[in-house]
Amino acid sequence: MNQDLQKERAAASFNPELLTHVLDGSPENTRRRREIENLILKDPDFQHEDLNFLSRSQRYEVAVRKSATMVEKMRKFNIADPAEIMWFKKLHLVNFVEPVGLNYSMFIPTLLNQGTTAQQEKWLLSSKGLEIIGTYAQTEMGHGTHLRGLETTATYDPETQEFILNSPTVTSIKWWPGGLGKTSNHAIVLAQLITQGKCYGLHAFIVPIRELGTHKPLPGITVGDIGPKFGYDEMDNGYLKMDNYRIPRENMLMKHAQVKPDGTYVKPLSNKLTYGTMVFIRSFLVGESARCLSKACTIAIRYSAVRHQSEIKPGEPEPQILDYQTQQYKLFPLLATAYAFQFVGAYMKETYHRINEDISQGDLSELPELHALTAGLKAFTSWTTNTGIEACRMACGGHGYSHCSGLPNIYVNFTPTCTFEGENTVMMLQTARFLMKSYDQVHSGKLVCGMVSYLNDLPSQHIQPQQVAVWPTVVDINSPDSLTEAYKLRAARLVEIAAKNLQTEVIHRKSKEVAWNLTSVDLVQASEAHCHYVAVKLFSEKLLQIQEKSIQAVLRNLCLLYCLYGISRNAGDFLQGSIMTESQITQVNERVKELLTVIRPDAVALVDAFDFQDVTLGSVLGRYDGNVYENLFEWAKKSPLNNTEVHESYYKHLKSLQSKL
Amino acid sequence: MNQDLQKERAAASFNPELLTHVLDGSPENTRRRREIENLILKDPDFQHEDLNFLSRSQRYEVAVRKSATMVEKMRKFNIADPAEIMWFKKLHLVNFVEPVGLNYSMFIPTLLNQGTTAQQEKWLLSSKGLEIIGTYAQTEMGHGTHLRGLETTATYDPETQEFILNSPTVTSIKWWPGGLGKTSNHAIVLAQLITQGKCYGLHAFIVPIRELGTHKPLPGITVGDIGPKFGYDEMDNGYLKMDNYRIPRENMLMKHAQVKPDGTYVKPLSNKLTYGTMVFIRSFLVGESARCLSKACTIAIRYSAVRHQSEIKPGEPEPQILDYQTQQYKLFPLLATAYAFQFVGAYMKETYHRINEDISQGDLSELPELHALTAGLKAFTSWTTNTGIEACRMACGGHGYSHCSGLPNIYVNFTPTCTFEGENTVMMLQTARFLMKSYDQVHSGKLVCGMVSYLNDLPSQHIQPQQVAVWPTVVDINSPDSLTEAYKLRAARLVEIAAKNLQTEVIHRKSKEVAWNLTSVDLVQASEAHCHYVAVKLFSEKLLQIQEKSIQAVLRNLCLLYCLYGISRNAGDFLQGSIMTESQITQVNERVKELLTVIRPDAVALVDAFDFQDVTLGSVLGRYDGNVYENLFEWAKKSPLNNTEVHESYYKHLKSLQSKL
Repeated sequence: MNQDLQKERAAASFNPELLTHVLDGSPENTRRRREIENLILKDPDFQHEDLNFLSRSQRYEVAVRKSATMVEKMRKFNIADPAEIMWFKKLHLVNFVEPVGLNYSMFIPTLLNQGTTAQQEKWLLSSKGLEIIGTYAQTEMGHGTHLRGLETTATYDPETQEFILNSPTVTSIKWWPGGLGKTSNHAIVLAQLITQGKCYGLHAFIVPIRELGTHKPLPGITVGDIGPKFGYDEMDNGYLKMDNYRIPRENMLMKHAQVKPDGTYVKPLSNKLTYGTMVFIRSFLVGESARCLSKACTIAIRYSAVRHQSEIKPGEPEPQILDYQTQQYKLFPLLATAYAFQFVGAYMKETYHRINEDISQGDLSELPELHALTAGLKAFTSWTTNTGIEACRMACGGHGYSHCSGLPNIYVNFTPTCTFEGENTVMMLQTARFLMKSYDQVHSGKLVCGMVSYLNDLPSQHIQPQQVAVWPTVVDINSPDSLTEAYKLRAARLVEIAAKNLQTEVIHRKSKEVAWNLTSVDLVQASEAHCHYVAVKLFSEKLLQIQEKSIQAVLRNLCLLYCLYGISRNAGDFLQGSIMTESQITQVNERVKELLTVIRPDAVALVDAFDFQDVTLGSVLGRYDGNVYENLFEWAKKSPLNNTEVHESYYKHLKSLQSKL
Repeated sequence: MNQDLQKERAAASFNPELLTHVLDGSPENTRRRREIENLILKDPDFQHEDLNFLSRSQRYEVAVRKSATMVEKMRKFNIADPAEIMWFKKLHLVNFVEPVGLNYSMFIPTLLNQGTTAQQEKWLLSSKGLEIIGTYAQTEMGHGTHLRGLETTATYDPETQEFILNSPTVTSIKWWPGGLGKTSNHAIVLAQLITQGKCYGLHAFIVPIRELGTHKPLPGITVGDIGPKFGYDEMDNGYLKMDNYRIPRENMLMKHAQVKPDGTYVKPLSNKLTYGTMVFIRSFLVGESARCLSKACTIAIRYSAVRHQSEIKPGEPEPQILDYQTQQYKLFPLLATAYAFQFVGAYMKETYHRINEDISQGDLSELPELHALTAGLKAFTSWTTNTGIEACRMACGGHGYSHCSGLPNIYVNFTPTCTFEGENTVMMLQTARFLMKSYDQVHSGKLVCGMVSYLNDLPSQHIQPQQVAVWPTVVDINSPDSLTEAYKLRAARLVEIAAKNLQTEVIHRKSKEVAWNLTSVDLVQASEAHCHYVAVKLFSEKLLQIQEKSIQAVLRNLCLLYCLYGISRNAGDFLQGSIMTESQITQVNERVKELLTVIRPDAVALVDAFDFQDVTLGSVLGRYDGNVYENLFEWAKKSPLNNTEVHESYYKHLKSLQSKL
């Protein structure tokens, strides 16, 4: 093991294994996760080659081959639990991007949720067996966020009892679906249903796109890869254009809405249930944010413990760069954030399961708040993580920029999270809509409950002016609970400002929609403050559940750092509305610097506790073992440009350069 | 031309051509720049293929071929002025990365600055003619920032009158030099000079690394490519390991220091002049920041004018996404920042030329301040641009993530700027060192001049307490001059806090170096505030030079937005120290929103004025012409994954997947 890391580990104030159990939920969960991870890490069939040295076409081919291996192994090892599937998949490609992924994550679930029993009988088995490889085609070139704007049509022809699918414009071409470009032979296509001369909005259809046996596009289908992206090299995100393409009536998923053979449309009972799926996907993405930020912190902090550079005191040996205050200030607040998001992610997962239970018992009461909360938290955590990964990369200096660090890949494969499954700004505005509704409710005399219950205490809601005295509060900057109160007051204040600005705009402009647009910057800020409060609150509450003293102590410091750093960076919000005084802000800034020193000896153990075995595969800088520089040299030698001593094809140009002059 | 863009252009309040002249410096400069750019854009020899579809090895090969064409054409068209070379190069590879670049930017200049006349006679002609292709090898695997830590040795052997070059450790392997991996046959190597048993520190040596004629590595030389990076795919950044590799004594560059044949060391007269080169490179990078942010804004704003999505009022046609306040809030402050940086870049360029004149007349008095200023501004502008490019990309939704937008390439090729030529945090601390020195000077009763002269007015420097009344000032939020004053007060306050915290730490810890480290977060913040003030000041002053009313009006709005947005995002700094009141901050927030609406009609014309003809080559979304979606579809079809209807090699794996289950 690396000597620097060994020393760091010996000096830690706690046993990281115990913290890993906290993060996994139990020692048993940790044991089982490792067992599954080792199935892959130790299996030569997965051939853990470094994808960085391959061209995109090669990377895609490797991914398809590995997908095949993965499916086979999952059956062999009897891995079926969703969490276990996730652990398994996460490792098999390191970056968790796989061409057949959407068959499992979107095609089959949609079939189950929206298909009739007969439809499930027809397609489920062959899609589970991958005779049918399916994807989910919703987004078009011209429309992502605005679903009503989608243009693909499915027009019913009662004579042949078929739907005629068309992509009437360039903008209507399906664009982005994963696995569509080369891999899939079927797609669930979302299209505007037209029957008996009337449009009934978006519905889902099972559309064969490639011929079984030859895998060639079927007549009337134009399908292909949308070209290179920032990341996701292994994924064949695709396009799909349909020209008078006919499918049988039975290919419309008819569990809810139906089209009768004569073309009569039967509408669904309710569509509130789609909320549930959204809550699931977005709560999963909160967890993904936590994992990706944790992984980036692991690499950057380990490397900072191993890298020696420059000098603090002249004449002394070069210190570890982790000893520089500026480096600590870059990394430790992110480490604290990663822990905060781990706990937010765990809360979101629990909540999803609880709600799912409630729904199955017919109780939908909590759904609106949770829909709003997951929307905002998906945006809040993914934006922070997005910036955080890059901050980690840049904290590794030049080597961070090399693919040897693994950080560029983490970034490019994470960053779409800010856009997909609900563009972040749109998500923040959805949360804001809920906040405004809650504010109005309180204003009209009704109490609200849940995470927004602080709105009940807004001074503007009280009749007596002396009640305002409730506001200025004495913040104890060493108490997570007291800091949570401060974040609550900030959120309440920003929600109130947004609500009042919205009202003012309504009075001036008369149109509610224009007013909403002209207040949207304030609305996003209100949502961010709300989400920040929720993250602080969940972290503080988590501390109370930890029994082990050494773990509680170190998490308490991280929680304080998370709270105080946030105040320091948003000091204006806390000064305005007199939540804190100027001298308190000065104390906060000083305390942040002290906490950096307090956390320093435990930094490596804190990232060890994340227990990323797969960092070894994806990052030379984040490894546990040996000399990082020797590893780096070995890695570099594998560069394809080094394949032969002299590439004649390159030298040809150099020679022409020399001879021409 | 695209209809949306046409409408936008017709509605602009000014003629962008006039603003282009301001940015270029004169109408004549604009004319000549376009003339040169057209030489490339219209020349089929450059074959403007899309590099995104190529593997890294192919991209490198294209780059070498284009370099050869470029050198030939530059001679043919008689392009020799540095600025003109830059325009020419910038276009020939769009992204301005080229394997032979360092021969011109580093090898030849170093030879000129540090080589004797005899040495220049020996090597200059053949390196200009590219018989010698040179690079500059300073950074090692283990050391970048800390030059004294470099480990490569050059030991003089008086018997043979040779230097023996060695890479004694893995960390001493030269790492990163551009063009070293495959392209160069010579390198200027920085090594610790050892003669007569004593080490004299870093000196420069001309080292042949590959055989002329065969281009094979010479015996004793291990050289190759360091592997794939986040960007710079076309560049063969390389490694170099030397084992008892001998070069003649005459290969040490001896204009300043010398080693006599018997091994006697003669030390140089002064090394202050290296400051000049640093000022040049970093001032150039300030301009690069401006150009890259401008380019990203061009793409994002044009696309936002073309993209229609969702609805503001129900039932009305989908608005351009540029009409959403949240989109304006993302992009217009960045547009204002791009203009600010354009003017900072122009100022830095002028300053460099002025200083160069002064130096040639023996006047080095302004060098320290300018060294500090360029260090800080390089960091300040590159950090802001780095985040800004990504913000532009993410403002383009899904299509921003595709390489069709051109934005991922702009980002990955720009982001090393934060690390190279002086890591940004280290740069900020260099500026801070100058600020602390100036503060101490004022404190000891001497006035300082230049950009830091505001320190003369610090209230703590005055004896009478009533002088403090100078501080609280009435800020007019519609006056760029008044806002510049506010930024000045903020900088003065943060410099003072850093200085006082540094003093306190010195008192507590006794070691100056440890105190410096424990104050470095404050020091960086002081430097940032100083640089922000400089940018605001230069933008405000620029307004006074503009004659044309329509141009002045639109730039004034951008300047106000730049100032007010910065206050809004750093409200804490302006509230503390009572520079502004809470109600003023509220006004600032409101005014920012108003300015978004004011700038909206001119947004497209404002990016047109940057006049990026090459955006057409690098970005489908940033084009002037036609239907963006049709262009996108045409682009995607070229994806290598689409080369054949069915890739048998892929389908092979899919088939195995289907048959196994």
